[in-house]
Amino acid sequence: MKKVGKQTFMLTNPVNITSTACIVGPKEKDGPLHKYFDQTLEDEFWGESTWEKAESKIIKETVATALAKSGIASADIDFCFAGDLLNQCISSSFGLRDANIPFFGVFGACSTFVESAILASMSIDGGFATNAICASSSHFCSAEKQFRFPLELGNQRPPTSQWTVTGAGSMILSKTGQGPFITSITPGKIVDMGIKDANNMGGAMAGAAEDTIIRHFEDTGRTPDYYDAIFTGDLGYIGKDILIDLVKSHGYNIKNNYNDCGVLIFDKDKQDTHSGGSGCGCIASVFSGYIFNQLQYKKLNKVLLVATGALMNATSSQQGESIPGIAHAISIEL
Amino acid sequence: MKKVGKQTFMLTNPVNITSTACIVGPKEKDGPLHKYFDQTLEDEFWGESTWEKAESKIIKETVATALAKSGIASADIDFCFAGDLLNQCISSSFGLRDANIPFFGVFGACSTFVESAILASMSIDGGFATNAICASSSHFCSAEKQFRFPLELGNQRPPTSQWTVTGAGSMILSKTGQGPFITSITPGKIVDMGIKDANNMGGAMAGAAEDTIIRHFEDTGRTPDYYDAIFTGDLGYIGKDILIDLVKSHGYNIKNNYNDCGVLIFDKDKQDTHSGGSGCGCIASVFSGYIFNQLQYKKLNKVLLVATGALMNATSSQQGESIPGIAHAISIEL
Repeated sequence: MKKVGKQTFMLTNPVNITSTACIVGPKEKDGPLHKYFDQTLEDEFWGESTWEKAESKIIKETVATALAKSGIASADIDFCFAGDLLNQCISSSFGLRDANIPFFGVFGACSTFVESAILASMSIDGGFATNAICASSSHFCSAEKQFRFPLELGNQRPPTSQWTVTGAGSMILSKTGQGPFITSITPGKIVDMGIKDANNMGGAMAGAAEDTIIRHFEDTGRTPDYYDAIFTGDLGYIGKDILIDLVKSHGYNIKNNYNDCGVLIFDKDKQDTHSGGSGCGCIASVFSGYIFNQLQYKKLNKVLLVATGALMNATSSQQGESIPGIAHAISIEL
Repeated sequence: MKKVGKQTFMLTNPVNITSTACIVGPKEKDGPLHKYFDQTLEDEFWGESTWEKAESKIIKETVATALAKSGIASADIDFCFAGDLLNQCISSSFGLRDANIPFFGVFGACSTFVESAILASMSIDGGFATNAICASSSHFCSAEKQFRFPLELGNQRPPTSQWTVTGAGSMILSKTGQGPFITSITPGKIVDMGIKDANNMGGAMAGAAEDTIIRHFEDTGRTPDYYDAIFTGDLGYIGKDILIDLVKSHGYNIKNNYNDCGVLIFDKDKQDTHSGGSGCGCIASVFSGYIFNQLQYKKLNKVLLVATGALMNATSSQQGESIPGIAHAISIEL
């Protein structure tokens, strides 16, 4: 490992992505990426009595699928890094309580998947782990109930709002393998743009994405065209446009090879999802399904994956607080 | 670093605890450890308009105090690992949003302080960081409101219940220094004993503490008398007694040199705190204040610090779920 610039680390022994898996809900099944998901559900309950229990089952089965694909016995997994959006991250802790693997709970809101990947990469590169699991989940119904209003109210959603993805993504990271590899990590700082509208998460998080992306470019000396594709998750349509402008103000043009997982997962016109998808499960499932597939089939060779999180809760918004954002980035190369 | 047994790592380059700091509330000020805290508050608000804002201020000022004591500029801190009990960990993210340091949100309930220390130690031993901050907080009023009932109701508390500590602890870990040092880490697995009573956290978490402590002894070949003191945080009186019995069933006697931070922080008889203290801020402030003082003055030379967390939320209890526990351990030696 070699530190470059202020906060980027080049992994001289790149970390192997041994397998990925993703399971998503019915709305995601109807979206444009449906063929890339390992499993899609017919309803939001999956046979459970509550949405929270369904979300736990989704992350549990997603991790089981990633493990099965990897061919690695769970006894050979050193650590599990996982988190979600539910209060006290209960989707992860209940879903993975029987895993029997040393467990690190992680909270970075929708940045959790990449935060977990960075922590797992450091543990592998640092010699502490040979194999590690990363996982995160979200659920539309449990998230709406917790962050906004009971679904039964049928509240109208403003155009800036994003639709929380029902789904989970998981990956098994290993010390060795055939790739794709995590080749660099850029952990992010908290950035608060002063936005107070809890229905404009994309706007609130764009500044954090800008900060981490610019940091990554300056630290590495790379420009956007180094990458075949840059993905954020999840700024949605509005945050994506803001980010393009913010990054441009530093002299970098990402317009040609940049997209957002929240934009990709739903069909905005047909699915009434306003500014796009969001939630810990969005970038987790879009990466584990679509992006990883593109890497495996060499349609993409170099990807910068930037996960963004809004570090607020329902109480902080009610108390008039602004929304701090964070963004964590990893590069993935063949 | 050298892995011993199944899940313990001996740090061949021990991580230095450069400084610690703790700020606690008025009830903790009235407790037996009052003289070890850096600052104690006159009321639960500290000039803020809400308990959540007060908790954010406590963790912010605690980190600032630890930094000031360390003599290290914040620009020389590589990472911050922090978390708390509030939904979506807003105490940490709001309290530390201006820190301008790459930030990892951590959630391990009351195990967060040691989980953060393990992650920070891996990042330092692995060469990623020279200095890192660990911090966690809790607040009696914000926790009661969120996990149980509004304080205004004046609900009666059962004898098994614990009193959430208002306070925060923080430490600065560094690659080099004069000690005390973190010499080994034993990250824990999730253990669910099937206990469903959200007012008996100590009982619910005792099995996780047992699992990690026995793992640590078996991995290292050590027996309890290797340590001058073993501390858990926070099992309280009831969980402490259960743990002594559970550990004894494996042939280890910890009765003579073991105590719990939740037992130490309050005077049970005078302060009406039932089974003792709890909360992310309990072990964080008791370690950063009392235990670190004992290490500095060589009254203790070898300590095993085991933080325990109950990985549930209010909704999971209402849905009839049991309470998964976790425990993370570090040894600290001069």
